Amino acid sequence: MRIITPGEGETFDIELEENLLAKNRELAQANRRRLDERGIKAFDVMGAVGSGKTSLVGRLIEHLRDHRIGVLAGDLTTTIDADRLAQHGAVAVVQINTGRECHLDANVVAKGLDELLQHDLDVIFIENVGNLICPAEFPLGSHARIVVVSVTEGPYMMRKHPYILREADVVVINKLDLAEVVNADLEQLRRDATEVNPKCRVVLTDCLGGEGVDQVAAALGL
Amino acid sequence: MRIITPGEGETFDIELEENLLAKNRELAQANRRRLDERGIKAFDVMGAVGSGKTSLVGRLIEHLRDHRIGVLAGDLTTTIDADRLAQHGAVAVVQINTGRECHLDANVVAKGLDELLQHDLDVIFIENVGNLICPAEFPLGSHARIVVVSVTEGPYMMRKHPYILREADVVVINKLDLAEVVNADLEQLRRDATEVNPKCRVVLTDCLGGEGVDQVAAALGL
Repeated sequence: MRIITPGEGETFDIELEENLLAKNRELAQANRRRLDERGIKAFDVMGAVGSGKTSLVGRLIEHLRDHRIGVLAGDLTTTIDADRLAQHGAVAVVQINTGRECHLDANVVAKGLDELLQHDLDVIFIENVGNLICPAEFPLGSHARIVVVSVTEGPYMMRKHPYILREADVVVINKLDLAEVVNADLEQLRRDATEVNPKCRVVLTDCLGGEGVDQVAAALGL
Repeated sequence: MRIITPGEGETFDIELEENLLAKNRELAQANRRRLDERGIKAFDVMGAVGSGKTSLVGRLIEHLRDHRIGVLAGDLTTTIDADRLAQHGAVAVVQINTGRECHLDANVVAKGLDELLQHDLDVIFIENVGNLICPAEFPLGSHARIVVVSVTEGPYMMRKHPYILREADVVVINKLDLAEVVNADLEQLRRDATEVNPKCRVVLTDCLGGEGVDQVAAALGL
């Protein structure tokens, strides 16, 4: 079988210019300083559409009842996620609609923080746009990054998406309740994840039912 | 609730420059001419990770036994999809590994065609990288575009991803066999899809079991 791998300069496509990424890293560090000055811990949540990012954040808000929690919710369009999370008891929720942009960046998160930091908060969750590729290269200034994967995404997803997994401090394998019906091999998924990123913590959850959410909180030091 | 929508020039992010998109459209037209000269029909398949793109293409190859079929399979890394499709009886399979690039473009597809057109083919399927956002803006020169959605991606996915749906000639709602267990409202998903894109054909499938694959072929005129 022939394998084509576009080389340097071979694609006429957008090149992620190093100065763009460097600028993002600078702004991410500035976000981090603002958070640290106020003693706020922030966590960003990445994953594909329907993996369960919003359900996870909703369950974490319920679990962390003693915390004052703010949320930045990123989506191309709609306020569906922010509306859902406001109902879970977040102190403040800001929706970021990116239009055609496929990920959040540290600049738009800084604008979100302008809003959220008007409230007295302990913890901020940043839910990225549903996308397993582009968010990886844009750190946002959070204290840890979470990647949510659903067992319904098939047996190969960890091996197909190494770049985002390498960014993850915590990998959440979600929809445990569907594992049997889709014949998911949970131990293989776990092995694949830790093979790609030996430093990540892997937690199994059913975020609709609530199973494992306490372990995610513990993995985040909450 | 506060909604932030980054305006023109407000993000420091990559802007998809119009000349880049125009260049892609030119190359897509050139791809189309090469296909038309040889009487080959090409279809590109987009969708999130695990939505069932490879299963759909595999089933279509089996269903279209009288056709000589070639495949371009796009992924960041690995040859998993191409290996699977070669086993389904494709005449020729080319894997395109995009590295960190989040979508195929008409240029890399032209390189794939250099390989595929060495064979005598009737039909080419182009499986894009698993991503519901970035592939939308890059037509590849195909005769029709397919978007595959899984019922496990949740009730909001059509409304959250209007840009790619507007590109679709055929929207495949897959994993019908899981619809009941995830409480999917199939009619609502269908309504959402046609509300976003009134011209698209919606087909329900279970690509693992094979249900509905004949209707996808029919919708493609095959």
